[in-house]
Amino acid sequence: MAPLAVSMGDPAGIGPEVIAKAWAARDAHRLPCFFAVGDLRAIGAAWTGPVERIDDPRDATAVFPRALPVVSAVDGGTIEPGRPDVDRARCALQALELAAGLARSGTAAGLVTGPVSKAELYRIGFTYPGQTEFVAERCGVARENAVMMLAGPTLRVVPITIHEALADVPRLLTIELVVARARSTARGLALDFGIAEPRLAVAGLNPHAGEGGAIGREEIDVLVPAIAQLRAEGIDIVGPLAADTMFHPRARARYDAALCAYHDQALIPIKTLHFDDGVNITLGLPIVRTSPDHGTAFGIAGKGLAHPGATIAAILMAADAATHRARAANA
Amino acid sequence: MAPLAVSMGDPAGIGPEVIAKAWAARDAHRLPCFFAVGDLRAIGAAWTGPVERIDDPRDATAVFPRALPVVSAVDGGTIEPGRPDVDRARCALQALELAAGLARSGTAAGLVTGPVSKAELYRIGFTYPGQTEFVAERCGVARENAVMMLAGPTLRVVPITIHEALADVPRLLTIELVVARARSTARGLALDFGIAEPRLAVAGLNPHAGEGGAIGREEIDVLVPAIAQLRAEGIDIVGPLAADTMFHPRARARYDAALCAYHDQALIPIKTLHFDDGVNITLGLPIVRTSPDHGTAFGIAGKGLAHPGATIAAILMAADAATHRARAANA
Repeated sequence: MAPLAVSMGDPAGIGPEVIAKAWAARDAHRLPCFFAVGDLRAIGAAWTGPVERIDDPRDATAVFPRALPVVSAVDGGTIEPGRPDVDRARCALQALELAAGLARSGTAAGLVTGPVSKAELYRIGFTYPGQTEFVAERCGVARENAVMMLAGPTLRVVPITIHEALADVPRLLTIELVVARARSTARGLALDFGIAEPRLAVAGLNPHAGEGGAIGREEIDVLVPAIAQLRAEGIDIVGPLAADTMFHPRARARYDAALCAYHDQALIPIKTLHFDDGVNITLGLPIVRTSPDHGTAFGIAGKGLAHPGATIAAILMAADAATHRARAANA
Repeated sequence: MAPLAVSMGDPAGIGPEVIAKAWAARDAHRLPCFFAVGDLRAIGAAWTGPVERIDDPRDATAVFPRALPVVSAVDGGTIEPGRPDVDRARCALQALELAAGLARSGTAAGLVTGPVSKAELYRIGFTYPGQTEFVAERCGVARENAVMMLAGPTLRVVPITIHEALADVPRLLTIELVVARARSTARGLALDFGIAEPRLAVAGLNPHAGEGGAIGREEIDVLVPAIAQLRAEGIDIVGPLAADTMFHPRARARYDAALCAYHDQALIPIKTLHFDDGVNITLGLPIVRTSPDHGTAFGIAGKGLAHPGATIAAILMAADAATHRARAANA
């Protein structure tokens, strides 16, 4: 397998530190070969271990046992952890673009993206809701077909609507959207997780999944017809289920991914259970893409306090997904 | 302490069985003395252990070591587990009323209510949303002042709105309602849990608590002013917090109860973590009242399959609450 490309994210955030700490823990966690993409000096500003600049990503394999390999083709200017600004944001964006391109070309087996500051990116004209949509566009995929999944060791969730005000969710939840998200999820579970016959579960929007229309009609008007259509396509899918009783251990064992109507319905259970080892994986792209599920944490950047657990989990999940894709391609 | 009164709930549901099984496990779980209230024959239909009819609840203490004491002043007619109907619903309601009265008079130290069938109760003219509101009225408390809390060993949650369609929640979430629920919660934590200075946390309604108004304005328009008012009253309360990141173990350690905007926001985390040992406790009543957080489960009634874990937890929590109240009264 080719090495994984890990973009540093904002050089003033905790991205460089957690990537370096993940490298330092490579043996304990049996991490596959990876290289960082960003400004080499961002690593040095947050970490004192061995770092080695590489010009050709293919050199990562030789370097990885002795030092963190860094493709340092971008210039972050004066880097001070915890002090973001537009130059740092430009550096983060260039690193993301470069790393995505290396994954797209096959030079990297997959892409792991470090955390960026959306506020700073917006100041330099970035118009995407997040890195996911940017990467989707660079891959030539419509953003509605790139599906965000949060995955931990005992639960995978897909929010059907994402960063929307709760009051807008009932209107945005359409049969078409539910069907599209479920199809992408089923394909993604097969492609990136090697689950040949994925089982999906759909959460109801309302308490007790609406109690047959007594507490809201979205289940009857939207979710039931969407599920019927998906079943007719041969997808193994159940629901709408009462959201509160579908995330305990015995319930979770009955499905491979839960489709949730809105952000918190999906993210409350996954972060309650897997706050430190949950991974954001984008389904529906031609490349493997994962991300640790945390932000830049500017407040603790450069202090040595950041934990690499989520980055380690993201690297391992990207490697697993790349392996599943390679097997499928060779089958 | 006086014994606890445990109403059987629907005699055709799993209530009688789990109460009997709780009694059988009284030594292992160090359960305090309690007696069941309902039709004695409902126990016999689901369980073969020792049962003893008592006419005076004060006899429970003498009977408890050798048999499950039952105040059997109600007649359930022909009881067949798994076969609910209006006569069984009448029996459940009479048992509830009797048990509540015994708690109200002090003959019982507290009330634990078994599961009822709301569908059957509605057929006999029951007009309350649930047992909670019925008990509140029998105690002379306005239903808006009786607060439902779900409590498990590592988390307590209070939904601010409960059985409402999600689309109605933004409109129903008012400053007045948030303030009322938070006040009752703070008082209840002191009274029933013995927490002298309770710490409350309020969840935002929108993803990331609205991101400063970028994803919904309810935080700014409702939650922030409500929290300011509560702080001015001396209540230790923080928020609005992003709901997805407030339920992992380190976050839970920072508060004694989480106030949530709607049903699933509260019930997803508690049932994810404490599906088998979560207890429904009503705050704001002159009596202690708890309930196992499950339904009648007619489908498995009479088959010996029902687990008494939630009932055991509800009995233990009622006993703890009664002890805290007695201590406060004697202080």
